[in-house]
Amino acid sequence: MALRALAFDVFGTVVDWRSSIIGELEMFGERHGLAEDWPAFADAWRAGYPAAMDRVRTGELPWLKIDDLHRLILDELLDRAGIVVPDDDVAELNRAWHRLDPWPEAVEGLTLLKRSFTITTLSNGNVSLLTNMAKRAGLPWDCVISAELFRHYKPDREAYLGCAELLDVAPGELALVAAHPSDLRAARDAGLMTAYVARPLERGPGRRPPRVEDGEFDYTADDFVDLARTLASRIG
Amino acid sequence: MALRALAFDVFGTVVDWRSSIIGELEMFGERHGLAEDWPAFADAWRAGYPAAMDRVRTGELPWLKIDDLHRLILDELLDRAGIVVPDDDVAELNRAWHRLDPWPEAVEGLTLLKRSFTITTLSNGNVSLLTNMAKRAGLPWDCVISAELFRHYKPDREAYLGCAELLDVAPGELALVAAHPSDLRAARDAGLMTAYVARPLERGPGRRPPRVEDGEFDYTADDFVDLARTLASRIG
Repeated sequence: MALRALAFDVFGTVVDWRSSIIGELEMFGERHGLAEDWPAFADAWRAGYPAAMDRVRTGELPWLKIDDLHRLILDELLDRAGIVVPDDDVAELNRAWHRLDPWPEAVEGLTLLKRSFTITTLSNGNVSLLTNMAKRAGLPWDCVISAELFRHYKPDREAYLGCAELLDVAPGELALVAAHPSDLRAARDAGLMTAYVARPLERGPGRRPPRVEDGEFDYTADDFVDLARTLASRIG
Repeated sequence: MALRALAFDVFGTVVDWRSSIIGELEMFGERHGLAEDWPAFADAWRAGYPAAMDRVRTGELPWLKIDDLHRLILDELLDRAGIVVPDDDVAELNRAWHRLDPWPEAVEGLTLLKRSFTITTLSNGNVSLLTNMAKRAGLPWDCVISAELFRHYKPDREAYLGCAELLDVAPGELALVAAHPSDLRAARDAGLMTAYVARPLERGPGRRPPRVEDGEFDYTADDFVDLARTLASRIG
């Protein structure tokens, strides 16, 4: 079965959320005269997100998009830090997740991959977040697919299969591209192909990258340009 | 309220479905040694589509995407013409709707409009059809939104409001751009802004364009380049 389409995890795989969010928090801090450990604040913001999604998954919360989950976590973190600013400023800070910068070679790599494959997002980020991000960063997606469309967050099977269905390809004609083994394993369990791209700096310098067994995923690459080369040589 | 996003009707507004489908049918005829009145065949294929959508809308048929509705109508037309060809050839012909050519200035106009607005499809065509079409024709959408995502065909209100919700804009911050007054009226009734773009050749030469009252829609333009100028002068 030929590979026809690539679906990309976004946070961490396409964009460097950590540096971007730290930068946004530092600007927020300067504007409001606040001194905090912003890297730790960024990590806590991100760390709250799997638990928040689980509250949706279990039905404790109704369906909420990532913008709303990010806001829930942010409100809690600001409250805990005793930071009080006008609501508009909190909303603006929350939209920092729409303004994440891509990894240095991401646009070039996606442009190469787009020549041979349909390329889409498959992110837990909502459609407007992904659309705004792509517009600002010049990410050349063929379309924007989000967990929001299925009201199922990854790693729910519905997200991977829903993506294949919208693209009208068989699961085996679609590869998930991600820097996170857990996401790739769930995609594989749903019948998708898998491409692991290492992003060793996702969680900051000096952190150990996730453990991946040799041959566990169909393709492995150092970045998106390398992935384009790898797929050309394996499939071409 | 400021205009932030433009949602485009596609068949007839962005692409010249009639010339494209006639061309595809002529190639199909040559391959199979068939002589038919292909312009009439194209018109009948298109004419079957509102009735087919209504069968979905009333619940007589379950949700079916446009690819499936096009196929239902095509099978009937081939049958009526006594044309029997292998199933793969019918499937390939049905995908002609993924290969429609844009109106001459459409890519240039969309590229201009994209500088100031988020631009998306809002079409009854399914996501894969719109994605394949955009990839082939170079349509620079920021995202691909389809009736398929709401399981409600235009002019159902859910399609217009669903589009605004996915873009996270108020209905009044979103304009539908269409060559069809009925589509625009339904969008207006749902609270959207409206931009009428004349496409006098949509149904072939010598046909009368639809009747539009002066001032009925918020914006009126001769094509997408003219729309970019109009919006720049009215909003800029």
